[in-house]
Amino acid sequence: MDVTLVDNLLFMIPLAGLVALIFGLYFYRSIFSKDTGTDEMRAISDAISDGAMAYLSRQYKTIGIIAIVLAVILGIFLEWQIAVAFLIGAAFSALSGFIGMYVSVNSNIRTASAARRSLKEALTTSFRGGAISGVAVAGLSLLGVFALIMLFEYVWGMELGLKYIVGYAFGASLAALFAQLGGGIYTKAADVGADLVGKVEAGIPEDDPRNPAVIADLVGDNVGDCAGRGADIFESTAAEIIGSMIIGFAAYGILTSNPITAGVNATAYVLFPLVLMAFGLIASLVGISVVRIKDEDDSLNRALNLGYFVTAGLSLVALVIVAHELLGEVWIHFIGCGLVGILLGIAIVFITQYYTSGEWRPVKEIAKASETGPATNFISGFAMGLETTVLPVIAIGVTLILSFIMGGMAGEALGLSTDFELFVFGLYGTAVATIAMLASAAFVLAEDTFGPIADNAGGIVEMSDLPDEIRDRTDRLDSIGNTTKALTKGYAMASAGLAAFLLFAAYFQLVAQETGADLIDVFVVNLGDPVIFVAGMIGGMLVFIFAGLAIRAVGDAAFDMINEVRRQFREIPGIMEGEAKPRYDQCVDIATKGALRAMVLPALLPIVVPVALGLIYKAAGFDAPAAVGALIMIGTIVGILMANLLNNGGGAWDNAKKYIEEGHHGGKGSPAHAAAVVGDTVGDPFKDTAGPSIHVLVKLLATIALVTVTFYI
Amino acid sequence: MDVTLVDNLLFMIPLAGLVALIFGLYFYRSIFSKDTGTDEMRAISDAISDGAMAYLSRQYKTIGIIAIVLAVILGIFLEWQIAVAFLIGAAFSALSGFIGMYVSVNSNIRTASAARRSLKEALTTSFRGGAISGVAVAGLSLLGVFALIMLFEYVWGMELGLKYIVGYAFGASLAALFAQLGGGIYTKAADVGADLVGKVEAGIPEDDPRNPAVIADLVGDNVGDCAGRGADIFESTAAEIIGSMIIGFAAYGILTSNPITAGVNATAYVLFPLVLMAFGLIASLVGISVVRIKDEDDSLNRALNLGYFVTAGLSLVALVIVAHELLGEVWIHFIGCGLVGILLGIAIVFITQYYTSGEWRPVKEIAKASETGPATNFISGFAMGLETTVLPVIAIGVTLILSFIMGGMAGEALGLSTDFELFVFGLYGTAVATIAMLASAAFVLAEDTFGPIADNAGGIVEMSDLPDEIRDRTDRLDSIGNTTKALTKGYAMASAGLAAFLLFAAYFQLVAQETGADLIDVFVVNLGDPVIFVAGMIGGMLVFIFAGLAIRAVGDAAFDMINEVRRQFREIPGIMEGEAKPRYDQCVDIATKGALRAMVLPALLPIVVPVALGLIYKAAGFDAPAAVGALIMIGTIVGILMANLLNNGGGAWDNAKKYIEEGHHGGKGSPAHAAAVVGDTVGDPFKDTAGPSIHVLVKLLATIALVTVTFYI
Repeated sequence: MDVTLVDNLLFMIPLAGLVALIFGLYFYRSIFSKDTGTDEMRAISDAISDGAMAYLSRQYKTIGIIAIVLAVILGIFLEWQIAVAFLIGAAFSALSGFIGMYVSVNSNIRTASAARRSLKEALTTSFRGGAISGVAVAGLSLLGVFALIMLFEYVWGMELGLKYIVGYAFGASLAALFAQLGGGIYTKAADVGADLVGKVEAGIPEDDPRNPAVIADLVGDNVGDCAGRGADIFESTAAEIIGSMIIGFAAYGILTSNPITAGVNATAYVLFPLVLMAFGLIASLVGISVVRIKDEDDSLNRALNLGYFVTAGLSLVALVIVAHELLGEVWIHFIGCGLVGILLGIAIVFITQYYTSGEWRPVKEIAKASETGPATNFISGFAMGLETTVLPVIAIGVTLILSFIMGGMAGEALGLSTDFELFVFGLYGTAVATIAMLASAAFVLAEDTFGPIADNAGGIVEMSDLPDEIRDRTDRLDSIGNTTKALTKGYAMASAGLAAFLLFAAYFQLVAQETGADLIDVFVVNLGDPVIFVAGMIGGMLVFIFAGLAIRAVGDAAFDMINEVRRQFREIPGIMEGEAKPRYDQCVDIATKGALRAMVLPALLPIVVPVALGLIYKAAGFDAPAAVGALIMIGTIVGILMANLLNNGGGAWDNAKKYIEEGHHGGKGSPAHAAAVVGDTVGDPFKDTAGPSIHVLVKLLATIALVTVTFYI
Repeated sequence: MDVTLVDNLLFMIPLAGLVALIFGLYFYRSIFSKDTGTDEMRAISDAISDGAMAYLSRQYKTIGIIAIVLAVILGIFLEWQIAVAFLIGAAFSALSGFIGMYVSVNSNIRTASAARRSLKEALTTSFRGGAISGVAVAGLSLLGVFALIMLFEYVWGMELGLKYIVGYAFGASLAALFAQLGGGIYTKAADVGADLVGKVEAGIPEDDPRNPAVIADLVGDNVGDCAGRGADIFESTAAEIIGSMIIGFAAYGILTSNPITAGVNATAYVLFPLVLMAFGLIASLVGISVVRIKDEDDSLNRALNLGYFVTAGLSLVALVIVAHELLGEVWIHFIGCGLVGILLGIAIVFITQYYTSGEWRPVKEIAKASETGPATNFISGFAMGLETTVLPVIAIGVTLILSFIMGGMAGEALGLSTDFELFVFGLYGTAVATIAMLASAAFVLAEDTFGPIADNAGGIVEMSDLPDEIRDRTDRLDSIGNTTKALTKGYAMASAGLAAFLLFAAYFQLVAQETGADLIDVFVVNLGDPVIFVAGMIGGMLVFIFAGLAIRAVGDAAFDMINEVRRQFREIPGIMEGEAKPRYDQCVDIATKGALRAMVLPALLPIVVPVALGLIYKAAGFDAPAAVGALIMIGTIVGILMANLLNNGGGAWDNAKKYIEEGHHGGKGSPAHAAAVVGDTVGDPFKDTAGPSIHVLVKLLATIALVTVTFYI
């Protein structure tokens, strides 16, 4: 394999990493040079920071123990290289989460302080805080894969290298699932507890310092949204780059073995995903830089959308350049593939906005249904959540089919003709679409992490008793942050859906490599075989039980939290008058324990079930590789549907509440508002615990299958 | 084909029909000879009966128009015989619903009157009312298929006959889907409206005559539970007998073409499902007859369970006899298949009881979570609903695999050896399991219809101001009726899951017949092909959007109902003091219009989407038959999961409320109770509208595919 830095544009990867590092450091300095406000603000910020760090260190201890046990198992039953890659992937994923959280807990207070001066400065501070996270995570993911695959390729060659590096993707997914799930349980247990007793029962505002759960709630935003999402995006890019490279390697095999394609730079097909991501990182940096407002009256929404469209546009330019340089005469076909991927990203942004923003029918209907109480609010929101699966599924389906067809056409244009050859090129087309869509990952994560920073800043402002106009500024940031959070989830879900097929293909490509067969002959998951059908049913069921356990964990921890908050209100004299301080630490402790206790079982299920099923099927003499394939494929379909339901339903409930708070249907304090608060509370574990964890779950199902493929053959 | 009445035990079918008719008439006379109580009771019963009849006639008009349009389409594009069979199926399905409802509205008042004398007489009256329905529906279904297939076989031969008779199954499914969906929307819109304003806001008891929605609520029990479920069980048995016969015909083809099996009665393989169902009908009659109690203190639960176990036991005996007489030397293998089917039925009874009865952990946890309000109640119940998918999916999966393996072993024992032959015999094994499980359908439907009769009787007692001890009797019947309703849903869902594979196989057998290929070569639904994968995603999405539309319809109609009830309480002076009568008719009208308006779109989706997808795929040059197969298969998997979630979640919420009413967590009137009432209300459209409609949906997906198979080839 002819891996040269210059011919394959590989030099762009360390270069992009370097540029990203410089940007990151610049943002870091620009944020950390800002003042941290008053002593009161610092005291609150310190409490948040301490709680978050304490939680994260305990969570990482748990993940660390599990990761080491799994690494030993992988080392014994598979290869030590996979075990090492696995540990590196898990460590980098955890590091991504840590960076996201560290920056976030330090940016929140500076954003709060900046909000005392201007909205513009507050936006810059919070968004750059998010940007550090985005840039660091995307950079780490890219450099990690690059360094490992270069090393593996050098020592063992590309085929073995790709087999080993799937350990990296699996490690990343595993750590991300724990981070997303644990953080998600933490944040929502605290949020539900704080809201239900504070807002609904005691009638005190959000983030009121008299609420004993308020610090836990603010900590939760950091450990759930920042640390969790950082790990999620890290593992998405890692898994999808690796999956694409595996398919690229199948294309490499075809290109080098067929005399018709002797002149094609076959190596470039393997490396293209890495290079495109490097260009995408730079596109994201530019996009991040253009996000700014002129004055108080400027639209925040437009500022962020501008950044996104700049990033998407530059990603397209990057795609054109990289495809032209690397993919030879068929570059135009692959630009088509990448274009539909980028368009999918944009379509999902609009679809998600339609379903979850207060401007359109869905949210308005939920708000209207709140007039008749929490029951009709639930019914309406749940029904809406179910209905929101339609457009994303169609968009993902169309993208998948179009990119597959265009990939196949590229193969034909190169003179390839067998079903197998065109199939692999079709798959490679879906890989290009996925990577093109993911090229803007750094920007999307920046947008996402900005949300909890703004949210926390608002909390600090509220608790420090600063003037209302400052709180208004942070509220505006917070509100736009809620929208961007919903968009990110749509993006993560769509990319998971699009990438899914790629990861299945990568799995079967490894099966093909192990058995010496052609991909097209082993990539047969025939539901017409009852035993395969049953494996598929179990895959779908896995998503249901996982979602159930995640939601229940929030319910259980929230139940304890509610009782604790009620107890403090009852037993601490003077708490409601602001004369006595609540025991914040007790609530932090409940959330921490609840999250750590409850995250282990659901996170282990997607590891244990596919492996157990594969081994049982193998022992029974059934077609185990296909059965595991059916499990992960139907698990993915059900996962996409369920994640959509949970994310969009939860987002719509949230914004229905906000829509009522804007004065509709009686406004704040009306019975409709009370019903909508209850609905929002139910939506919390849907959209911030189970939904985002399912994105990671579907990727973890694929990566565990990739890693353990040799068990089933 | 050697179709003789005696050799094939076919004479048992008209005989069983005759016996069923005699039993039915006997029950009918024994009920209608009873007194109808006081004038006041009659007035209420008449109002219920009028409302139900008025709704049903309007609903049937809508179904009739749609059915005629579809019949014309089928006649033009397919064959006129299919169109005729379709119309007969739809008409019989509607007739089943009508019988269920007619008997129910006449049994309720007689049960109420009997409750004035003794619990024993009230049980006999209500259960025999249910039994008429069960016997009539099972008898109609059996005789309809028998008469049609005998006619078709005689005129056009078995192969064409089976192709035509799928129209009957499709007609039955179509009418059942409308009946279940329309009735389900009606009943829950009324129920939610009556409960939320009456019980929660005004604090008046269930079925209080001051509640304007009370008559609509009682009408709903009849049109939803009785008419809907009657049509559902009718189409289940029809579709599954026909599917089994199609697979039996594939086995016939193998047995007659292979010289090794020249001595086997091949015809019997086609007719076995019909004969076994005939024996099952008689088993159910015996089971129904043993349901009785001695005195007030006797356990109703035990009485009903005894009936079920007698039916299941006799079904096993019937299986042994029929298999021994018809299936020759391999009868023992097929007894194994049937046995696992019967065991699945029993297992589902226990699993459903565990998840939805107040005696066990799940319901207790939901009740406990109600202490902290409706949000935690909802979170807990929803999480539980998701978790309840595990055991049923495993049970269905194990049954499917075991019966498939044993069927294949039967083929081996006959000396067959090719993959194709053993595959067909494996499928036939799953058919035997399905039919054995369904043999007790008449008993199960009797148990199910008994529930709403008891519920209505309670309503009549309450509204007529009869003494509390009488209400206590009807309450005991009602409570056990709720349990049996939950069990029936579990049974219907498990049978749908088990039968699903059979129906897919029947679909591909028709593909094979049309293309002249072997079943095993066309029955390939390879998810490894991206276009097939996308078709599968769309199948899963279809279930989500269907559930969303069904639940939303209830929400919308309930919203109107709540506002109407609130308006009447506000505007009619003296209504709360019982001095002025509420306008019941207004509420009946809202439920009727809401149901009719909202049922059409979701019921047409499962017809339009598979056909449209098939035609688009065919036009695009993709493998359309496989794509439609993927759509229905993944639609079925997701349907099973979703139906489980909705049925069990809803049932658990209901019983959590009842558990609290028994005095736990503060009992009636406590905050926990208020929260549980909200949860129960949310569960209503889950368990009585969307959930049961999804059972029919998955069958309709299969039957529409069966009917339109020639479009895609």
